[in-house]
This record gives sequence, structure tokens and C-alpha cells, in this order.
Amino acid sequence: MNLSIDVNILQMSSEKREKLKDRIVCEIPLTIVVNENKLITLQCSPDKLEYLAIGFLLSEGFIKEETKIKYLNLNKSDWHIKIGLEENFPDIKNSLLKKAVGSGCGKAVTFNQSVYIQELTPLKIQVKYSWEKISNLMEELQKRSLTFKNTGGVHSCALCSQERIEVFSEDIGRHNAMDKVFGECFIKGISTQDKAILTSGRISSEILIKAARRKVSIIASRSAPTDLAVSLAEKLNLTLIGFVRGHRMNIYTHNYRIT
Amino acid sequence: MNLSIDVNILQMSSEKREKLKDRIVCEIPLTIVVNENKLITLQCSPDKLEYLAIGFLLSEGFIKEETKIKYLNLNKSDWHIKIGLEENFPDIKNSLLKKAVGSGCGKAVTFNQSVYIQELTPLKIQVKYSWEKISNLMEELQKRSLTFKNTGGVHSCALCSQERIEVFSEDIGRHNAMDKVFGECFIKGISTQDKAILTSGRISSEILIKAARRKVSIIASRSAPTDLAVSLAEKLNLTLIGFVRGHRMNIYTHNYRIT
Repeated sequence: MNLSIDVNILQMSSEKREKLKDRIVCEIPLTIVVNENKLITLQCSPDKLEYLAIGFLLSEGFIKEETKIKYLNLNKSDWHIKIGLEENFPDIKNSLLKKAVGSGCGKAVTFNQSVYIQELTPLKIQVKYSWEKISNLMEELQKRSLTFKNTGGVHSCALCSQERIEVFSEDIGRHNAMDKVFGECFIKGISTQDKAILTSGRISSEILIKAARRKVSIIASRSAPTDLAVSLAEKLNLTLIGFVRGHRMNIYTHNYRIT
Repeated sequence: MNLSIDVNILQMSSEKREKLKDRIVCEIPLTIVVNENKLITLQCSPDKLEYLAIGFLLSEGFIKEETKIKYLNLNKSDWHIKIGLEENFPDIKNSLLKKAVGSGCGKAVTFNQSVYIQELTPLKIQVKYSWEKISNLMEELQKRSLTFKNTGGVHSCALCSQERIEVFSEDIGRHNAMDKVFGECFIKGISTQDKAILTSGRISSEILIKAARRKVSIIASRSAPTDLAVSLAEKLNLTLIGFVRGHRMNIYTHNYRIT
């Protein structure tokens, strides 16, 4: 399904009133059903929905590296995705209610009190990237973001090796875009530990925790971080880079990984 | 509490490596407790938290115009806000689990299947704004967004009369910024029906539904809408305006309200 469609608009300006076609981004409600239990509905862009569902379960800690997926069936007529997991799924209601609703997506964790943050240990990964490489990869991310170019309505996210963008996603939600990337890595068996993750969106604590969970030690954004993301990155030994624009960037934590 | 703080960064560019101070936005986890039951934790900017909590409850349909608030106590040491409602609070767990997690905040409704969208009826409000007024108010919104100017890390939202911005908020989440505005209106008894709401953020279905619930018939953004927001606006008789920039804007639905 297309990520965007044309609609009729009236464009007004000091010079004129004009009837035009305008391209806008599509939004659908994806309901994730795990072992016959309805888990949640995500408002998202209608592509890579299998990756999104798996990425969401990974980010929320519902599935782990060793989890076996028995089936994964997407029904596009009612936007339901059914996932079968071999193990008993934890008490969904209670699991879900332990989560916080985040500034950007509702998938955050209450790390002020929850077990989540305690689960995460400082990363020991020694991967290094040159700043020119980060800068070039961000330029590449922007070039690939065609839906953004056409609509201005999506975020983009990419997992990058030293050489290139390895996995790329767009979504109306910056959280979803990242979940799609990590979901695709999980399904295809692509290692995340030796790579950097780039996003067009702001880096809040929730976004940082997603990266930390997948053991990605460098996270870079075109946009701003929050203080909580920065202090978590400091603690978890992640390199957090913001405002990567043109040939300039701000490194907030652990700059030894950027040469 | 301040919405932003200074941190030490390393700024890298083709010309130099420089240690600088950079101002970044603050993020805190606000836990909302209603009638002694923990409802949810929101990641947000640390101001107007009473407004945020009430606005959230309004947006989610937990409280209505006539609901009496017995107490509202914010504890800044653990970021808990306790709210007492006169009526019996509905079964929180079940209410919450009926909601969807949205692209931008997790406070969306599954209007593909839920009662939410059926609750909303087309607005009959005949308020009109000139396009110059919308354009000027958006300029004013940007001028007021000092935290954005300093950090690039927040969204802003404003409820506007024909004359001026009446209520203004900033938050790391665009949903929170809007909830703060509507919460303040509720507590201060400011009417929303005769006004327009302006936001710096994208207009997804969730954002549109927030406006529709408060019977605001004109919603304008500097940014893009989604197709679902546009079709809901069409159905609910809301005027949806996007890309208000300089002296130009795109009117997606019900342009008769813009003169």
C-alpha cells in the first residue's frame, strides 16, 4: 500500500486562492494480537507492518533474541496482525499497564520506578565512526526519505554500517520508524551491535532506550535530544549525537567513539 | 521548574572541534493517579502539569464538562499527580486497554472499532477567521515558542480568539502541548468552542480528535496532516489547515470558515 495519497486542497496566500492537489501521508490503525490476545493498536504508516509489530514487541521487552515466532499473519482488510509465540505470553494487561505513555508514542517505560532501566547495563561496544561518515550517512538518510520529501509528514530511521544504510524505514511516528528498523533486523538476522542508528526525529528517553535494548552504541539525529535521554546515554555508555546538519554535529555523550 | 538546561557538548565540524555549552530540553515522567489508582505515566516537559493531567483525562474521555474535581495534588519530588474525582472512576485497566497507542503519543483511540468516533458528532459551529488572522497568529505562536528557539526540542500549541493567543503551552510531546492547553481552559473555565487551535506539530487522527472533543472547529498547523485526520475533519465538520508558513497555507477541509 502507498504511504501517501493525493487530496484536493485550497491554497491561500497573499497573491491568490488556488485549488490544488496536495500529497499527504497515510495513517492506519494496526492492531497487534499476540497468542489470540489483543495487545494494542498503533497508528502508523501502512508499510513494513510485520517489522513494526515485531519491533514493537522487542522494544517493549515482550520478545527476546531467543524467542521463536510460530506465525505472523497480517490481515490488511481490518489491519490486524496476529503473532504466535511459542512461550506463554506474559499477562498482557498487567505488562501493558506497567508501561508509561511517552511524549512521542506511549511506548516509553517508567524507568524512574520500573524494572526496565535496571535491566539495561552499560554497553561495552567499542565501534568507532568518523564524523564525516555520520554526516554522510545522515545526508543519505535524507535523500532516501522520499515520503518526507513528498508530504512532510513522516520520520525516517536507518541502521547503518560503516559503509552504508543497511535497513531503512519511514513512518508517521518516529518510534514506529525505529521499531520497523529493529523488527526487520530481528526477522532477517541482521546484527545491530556493530552499527549506528540514525533518526530524523528527536531523541527522548524512549528512543534512547530502544537503541540501548538492541545494543546499538551510536545514535544520531538531525534534531534535538532531551536531558533525560542524554543522562541515560551517559549512564548506558551510548554515544548520543544531535543536530547533525550539513558538516556540523553536537556530540552529547561518549565522544570517544567519533573520530 | 525550567523547561531546559545547559549541558557540555563537543561540537564537530569540518573547521573545528569545540567544547561548548548547549541548551537542551528537560523531560520528566509524570504519573497520574486518579482516586488512588495509578492510571498512566506521561513523559513530558515539567511545567503546567496540573493542566496536562486534566487535559489528558479530558482527551481520553475520563472526565467531562460537568465532572467535579475534588482535589489535585502535584508532588514534584516523585512527579506524581493525584486527582480526586467525585464520581466513581471507570474501570481504569479496561478503559485504558481499549485505547490505542498512537503514532505520536499512545493516547489515540481505535476509532476503526471503538465507540470513540461514534461519540463525536459533526460540529455545528459557524465561527470564521480571516486567513491573514490565522497567518498572524501562527507567527505569534512561533515568537512565543522560546523553549523551541533555545533547544529545538519542544512543540507548541495555542488556543486563539480572533484577537490573540489566549492559552499557550510548550511540551516535548505535541499531544501533551495540546492537552495542557485544553486542561488550562477546563480549569479556568475558558470557552473553546468559539476559538481556533494552532499547533507546531503534525495533525494525526489523535490530534484531530482532541480538538473535536473540545468542539474547536478550526485547527491549523505549521506542519503536515495525515489522510485519516483529513477524512475525520471532513466528517466532523472541522476546518483543517496545514503548512501555515509565511503568508501561505493549505486548507484541507471545510474552507468556508476561512475568509
